[in-house]
Amino acid sequence: MRYKLTFAYDGTDYQGFQSQKNGLGIQTVLEETLSKIAKEKIEVVASGRTDKGVHALGQVCHFDTLNKMSCNAWLRALNTYLPNDIAALDVEVVDDAFHARFHVTKKCYVYVIAKDYNLFRRHHEAYIPYPLDFEVMVEATKKLEGTHDFKGFGVYVEHKPTIKTLFQSSLEETDTHYIFTFIADGFLKYMVRSMVGTIVDIGRGKLPLSVIDIILENQDRTKVGKTSAPEGLYLKQVWY
Amino acid sequence: MRYKLTFAYDGTDYQGFQSQKNGLGIQTVLEETLSKIAKEKIEVVASGRTDKGVHALGQVCHFDTLNKMSCNAWLRALNTYLPNDIAALDVEVVDDAFHARFHVTKKCYVYVIAKDYNLFRRHHEAYIPYPLDFEVMVEATKKLEGTHDFKGFGVYVEHKPTIKTLFQSSLEETDTHYIFTFIADGFLKYMVRSMVGTIVDIGRGKLPLSVIDIILENQDRTKVGKTSAPEGLYLKQVWY
Repeated sequence: MRYKLTFAYDGTDYQGFQSQKNGLGIQTVLEETLSKIAKEKIEVVASGRTDKGVHALGQVCHFDTLNKMSCNAWLRALNTYLPNDIAALDVEVVDDAFHARFHVTKKCYVYVIAKDYNLFRRHHEAYIPYPLDFEVMVEATKKLEGTHDFKGFGVYVEHKPTIKTLFQSSLEETDTHYIFTFIADGFLKYMVRSMVGTIVDIGRGKLPLSVIDIILENQDRTKVGKTSAPEGLYLKQVWY
Repeated sequence: MRYKLTFAYDGTDYQGFQSQKNGLGIQTVLEETLSKIAKEKIEVVASGRTDKGVHALGQVCHFDTLNKMSCNAWLRALNTYLPNDIAALDVEVVDDAFHARFHVTKKCYVYVIAKDYNLFRRHHEAYIPYPLDFEVMVEATKKLEGTHDFKGFGVYVEHKPTIKTLFQSSLEETDTHYIFTFIADGFLKYMVRSMVGTIVDIGRGKLPLSVIDIILENQDRTKVGKTSAPEGLYLKQVWY
């Protein structure tokens, strides 16, 4: 039986979704917990990886098991045995053909920047210690929307397509935060943090607004701003 | 020259304000940072200790140094060299007779309980997985106000007075949280967490409302509820 699991995690204490030589990944914890509950070895396939320190509000994976527990029983058991920084949100039975990575149609990432440093939120939001021009950042963010070759903003992996469609690229301002929302059919490694870093550098006046067009046209990675910090990034939702 | 320093900290990664055999305290980090800046050994005297995992929004200490830097220079230097989970908020020159512990007139603690578990806030708020009766908790909280012998709610230390005046003991409810505020001329060790634990047990229906009067009248420690978790507790303000 194949199950689809939606889950959230605080990435602070992990080396990323995948385990690394130097530390534990969320995937390992999840697989160990599922295996313990099912009393058989279970492997998961997630919608994609997240980097060290990056969080998820709605990551998705699938797994196969002979253990035909009800979805509610899975949910309760997972939230009993998972550590406090990983939470199962939803479990459903899916067709054996369902694939959590291959069948993704859209993903949503949000990136949160605090206007003031809050030491209690330091692992869960980015802080930029410079004044930022909100209007020009909105313009820069809007320029990214649409279908482009995002190679300049990502890490190139051979044979992987770098043309993506950004359905939504928006920025809102609250009294305390700047919040970016990006919805696309796919994201390259470091793409969101690279886009945010570039937009922030534009907002600080360190880069001109036109740099966005140049990077999108020439895929010139040397032009992008500093990759923004992982603690502001959340994988919010995955669509199938 | 004697300085008064007001500072905030996230207690999550410390063994408490004071260093213990098994781990680092905030005091040690603060003294090492001050000593490094002043280029001489500096010791601090704080308004009081906080326990492992307890936070501060406005802890106060004093220290003496021969280094006559301006208050602003101290503030900037401290926030450059302190780790990200400790922040200097204010530095002022005080009379040599000022004492950060002996001269306290009032202290304010707040205790924050979340209505829903939020994995991103798990080190910074308490979560009670039971329905709570707000009205009866308000009544219980109000009963604590005034001058009482709080021995039943604290850990008794020989020769230390256990009669305290609680000027404010209140509870408010928001959409997402219950927030307690306690202002007193002094607090016994574990007193706030012991009061909150008892009030929560009353709110759950595990203890009757009358238990507050019994503990205050008979100082009966066996009657108090479970000491509430440290992560919900903040030392908010100290008055002199």
